[in-house]
Amino acid sequence: MSEISDILNLRYALDTLFLLLSGALVMWMAAGFSMLEAGLVRSKNTTEILTKNIVLYAIACIMFMLVGYSMMYPTNPVNSWWPGFGAMIGAEHDVANILGQSAESWYDGSYYAHAADFFFQVVFVATAMSIVSGAVAERMKLWPFFVFAIVLTGFIYPLQGYWKWGGGFLHAAGFQDFAGSGVVHLAGASAALAGVLLLGPRSGKYTRKGIQPITGANMPLAALGTFILWLGWLGFNGGSQLAVSTVENANAVAAVFVNTNAAAAGGVIAALLAARLFLGKADLTMVLNGAIAGLVAITAGPDTPSALLACMIGAVGGALVVASVVSLDRIKIDDPVGAISAHGVVGIWGLLAVPLSNTTASLSIQLLGIVCIGGFVFLSSLLVWAVIKAAVGIRVSEDEEYDGLDIHECGVEAYPEFTKSS
Amino acid sequence: MSEISDILNLRYALDTLFLLLSGALVMWMAAGFSMLEAGLVRSKNTTEILTKNIVLYAIACIMFMLVGYSMMYPTNPVNSWWPGFGAMIGAEHDVANILGQSAESWYDGSYYAHAADFFFQVVFVATAMSIVSGAVAERMKLWPFFVFAIVLTGFIYPLQGYWKWGGGFLHAAGFQDFAGSGVVHLAGASAALAGVLLLGPRSGKYTRKGIQPITGANMPLAALGTFILWLGWLGFNGGSQLAVSTVENANAVAAVFVNTNAAAAGGVIAALLAARLFLGKADLTMVLNGAIAGLVAITAGPDTPSALLACMIGAVGGALVVASVVSLDRIKIDDPVGAISAHGVVGIWGLLAVPLSNTTASLSIQLLGIVCIGGFVFLSSLLVWAVIKAAVGIRVSEDEEYDGLDIHECGVEAYPEFTKSS
Amino acid sequence: MSEISDILNLRYALDTLFLLLSGALVMWMAAGFSMLEAGLVRSKNTTEILTKNIVLYAIACIMFMLVGYSMMYPTNPVNSWWPGFGAMIGAEHDVANILGQSAESWYDGSYYAHAADFFFQVVFVATAMSIVSGAVAERMKLWPFFVFAIVLTGFIYPLQGYWKWGGGFLHAAGFQDFAGSGVVHLAGASAALAGVLLLGPRSGKYTRKGIQPITGANMPLAALGTFILWLGWLGFNGGSQLAVSTVENANAVAAVFVNTNAAAAGGVIAALLAARLFLGKADLTMVLNGAIAGLVAITAGPDTPSALLACMIGAVGGALVVASVVSLDRIKIDDPVGAISAHGVVGIWGLLAVPLSNTTASLSIQLLGIVCIGGFVFLSSLLVWAVIKAAVGIRVSEDEEYDGLDIHECGVEAYPEFTKSS
Repeated sequence: MSEISDILNLRYALDTLFLLLSGALVMWMAAGFSMLEAGLVRSKNTTEILTKNIVLYAIACIMFMLVGYSMMYPTNPVNSWWPGFGAMIGAEHDVANILGQSAESWYDGSYYAHAADFFFQVVFVATAMSIVSGAVAERMKLWPFFVFAIVLTGFIYPLQGYWKWGGGFLHAAGFQDFAGSGVVHLAGASAALAGVLLLGPRSGKYTRKGIQPITGANMPLAALGTFILWLGWLGFNGGSQLAVSTVENANAVAAVFVNTNAAAAGGVIAALLAARLFLGKADLTMVLNGAIAGLVAITAGPDTPSALLACMIGAVGGALVVASVVSLDRIKIDDPVGAISAHGVVGIWGLLAVPLSNTTASLSIQLLGIVCIGGFVFLSSLLVWAVIKAAVGIRVSEDEEYDGLDIHECGVEAYPEFTKSS
Repeated sequence: MSEISDILNLRYALDTLFLLLSGALVMWMAAGFSMLEAGLVRSKNTTEILTKNIVLYAIACIMFMLVGYSMMYPTNPVNSWWPGFGAMIGAEHDVANILGQSAESWYDGSYYAHAADFFFQVVFVATAMSIVSGAVAERMKLWPFFVFAIVLTGFIYPLQGYWKWGGGFLHAAGFQDFAGSGVVHLAGASAALAGVLLLGPRSGKYTRKGIQPITGANMPLAALGTFILWLGWLGFNGGSQLAVSTVENANAVAAVFVNTNAAAAGGVIAALLAARLFLGKADLTMVLNGAIAGLVAITAGPDTPSALLACMIGAVGGALVVASVVSLDRIKIDDPVGAISAHGVVGIWGLLAVPLSNTTASLSIQLLGIVCIGGFVFLSSLLVWAVIKAAVGIRVSEDEEYDGLDIHECGVEAYPEFTKSS
Repeated sequence: MSEISDILNLRYALDTLFLLLSGALVMWMAAGFSMLEAGLVRSKNTTEILTKNIVLYAIACIMFMLVGYSMMYPTNPVNSWWPGFGAMIGAEHDVANILGQSAESWYDGSYYAHAADFFFQVVFVATAMSIVSGAVAERMKLWPFFVFAIVLTGFIYPLQGYWKWGGGFLHAAGFQDFAGSGVVHLAGASAALAGVLLLGPRSGKYTRKGIQPITGANMPLAALGTFILWLGWLGFNGGSQLAVSTVENANAVAAVFVNTNAAAAGGVIAALLAARLFLGKADLTMVLNGAIAGLVAITAGPDTPSALLACMIGAVGGALVVASVVSLDRIKIDDPVGAISAHGVVGIWGLLAVPLSNTTASLSIQLLGIVCIGGFVFLSSLLVWAVIKAAVGIRVSEDEEYDGLDIHECGVEAYPEFTKSS
């Protein structure tokens, strides 16, 4: 083995490890969503939201392994907007390398292990689905939610993911979405919006006396969840460079880390000031959503802006999320954790902000991507939610909602010794 | 320095960093066990279980440094089943490289820093001991528990660890235990079972009216703990490949990450379905134990199965843990967190599942390992627990158990403002 | 490109990744401080402390980007104790590489990406400021705290940081502070002490009947925070080696990981025993502070001692923190989380302990560093606090303190369903 190939082998190893560690950080985001959502719902619905979160992660991993990965990255796509179902059950890429992999067969001259790529991709799917669970919290049935999770993670997400990251028509058109403000966050928020519209608001939220605040049961959990997401996002965005083993890639990954962190910081400060100005208080829930909004905003293009511009892109996201949360409440779209605002509205902003620093991006193509991803995921999700609603229903009964979902769905109270009902 | 040695030096650096980061992830599992156990006990015993967990981690680190590491990896073993106490107090390997190390003296042509190996190994010991703390929760005295921790982490664990990982007779026989379904998890569970048998069940658990459920005080903590363990396990299993700097090793580590994650996902789904079918509800505590069971099950051989097989091995573990938790309750073995089921019963399953994909493993040798590790740790632990019990007692008084261990042992309530007793 | 430069490029990539991952671990410490402090205050002040922690992190990131980094690492310092304000607004180093960076322009033959260095440095600043938030908890106004955070992270911290890490007079004098027992921890504690002295103790803490214990609301959060800090500290100390890509550096990083972990373990055991002996109980809050004390103690020199000596240095720190917490209470310095003791008193101990194993350190120079850093940060902070106090006040009203800061400052209760006030 010559010195040259020694270098290539070592690069292969380093890039594989880089993807695996980045994927581990993204996996950790599942804990972040769980804690954030568990902190922002009432105590009587906490066990149920935790159950939804851990199970949806497991569903996403299994469905993407069985179906999604080969659909999103097909060896023989039908055309640029339809990956072809044939890819799902027998492609060489999939069966040989993932389901029936052997370590020896992996190295095909590519620059990292296929399994590392699969691991990094699979944790992204779960992120998209996690966005949904927060928006439909406190009134959606458990099992119909899991049915939707199967469809989204196995079919809807991979199909639109193929359009951009699998080499489909959005990729060909020059749509820019570095780590998924559109493919992951807007997609998740669109699916969530469809569910929320069919589900309706929580009882007692919008009354004749106006909008009633429903406060989350556990702020430290919500803050912890946000910190977990912030940490995990470094892997989410950093790992999306897909390689680190050259000077150019290492510099890019470093820029992504700095910019991701700066955008989140900008989101925090902007949301804090917006909350102080318009709501009169330093509302922690807004500050937390500001951090997430900053992260979502920079995700479409964390590699090209300067740190100062990244901070400003995040700050616009942070202000936007406050305005959006308040606005959605006014039109009676009930999103207990603000997920549609933080991931959807701000995801759109992030995609539109890419041309500010990336000269290969164009506003019109970014808009095309937003319409295609948002439109497709919203409409297909609406259809799936509607079918599930017609078949078995998606909303718990009024009594169950009043008692809380924990007892009825899970049989386990989250805090049996702390609350008055115990 | 030639180009060849440049490559070797860089490999040395990469593998050292890999082990250190993997070890950091395993260290993080100490937080996972703490949160899981703190969530599953009652609020009156929460401070005490937290104290046990952080102190046992410290004890494990110190005892393994002073005694265990040189016993488990002796330079001059007496024979293949007895490492020799001489190794404990003066071996060159230990004194020169760990206790009295100097950075310059480490590089001896081996492929990573000795200190990185020590760091990775030391966090495993704590994992084994963490399993015990959950099983004996809510009725064991604090200080006798620490005495047992000293003996287990300094002597019992390293001796049986030597049998496999130190090059002893189980290694020679061809026993396969990649990351420790046996050496760590079955060992920990066997020590826990011995303690539980001598300790007896919690007051009020098994009454004339049947088995009384005692619900955990804080479900989000339990879920957080499970997510932490899931993340940490990627380092636990991935790092056990011990190197990543070649194509072969990088591929193996990637496979281990994919399979570990897939097994946990399988465990979640199987436990969810088993709980729904047999208990009637989507019981979150079972789902969490399902995730852990999936992880334990794949730990004996995460490098050889396909992702699909890994998922199935995890799923069997997930179903098994539900059956085992219910069964142990029927025979009045009181394990508040299900540790004996998740780590012991499922650990055995994991060891037996290795031959499904690893052609170098045989069922009979796996059984030999199970009997030797489980039998030795159980019996030696039983002896140690019995001596401690005779000397100072291991169980708190009935009054202390009723009041909770927090006030009596730690003088600090876990949630002074939330519970009625405050 | 020759083989030699291939090796150098790969080293550059590995060291950049090493710094970024270490920085991610340090960023995670922000979550650790948040959880620790949220667990140790009363429930009525929990939302506010969370808000302070996440916002101070954002402020630190932005101020260090705008001002601090170029001040701490100036291209054209005025002299060895004054970096020169000119560096703050237009230095080539800053504008070209951080604010207006482009990935292509970074590689200048240095051994890692400038942006990775910036990322690693910026998370340290936040750590220093996090120390302050705990000490002034439960009675300081929110917005004046943020004003102080702007000054500390943008000006005070970078100026004294320049003295050592930027190449100023303490560096020239041979002051040894590997990862910042002085530059970060003593500095943060000195700023905290100045604030606490001007702020006064919490109402009801020191009464005619003696010192009243005010117990923290949530022990599992405090324990979680400590585990997070422990994990993050591996990156804090390990990353401070700044490179890992050679045998020498890899060995040093491995030693730092082992010693950091050993010191924390020593701190835990010493604090446990000290609490048992002098306070009569295994007080968990002391044990947690013992872990942190062990970590602070080793931070000044984790690269030179043996693991056993590191454990002992940590143990002295653990005993010292118990004594210091009790002593500060006696002289009526009210520090709700023990931050001044754990970071300040033990930080001094850590700096003094360096000569025990590092032959290039001298006790007198260490003392010089302690006096300069502690004195400068204390006095400058005192001045800033005094100006803020005179201008807008720093302490909430008695009514606000009685009601809790959460309602008045943030408008959001931390646990609305768990406490009696709800």
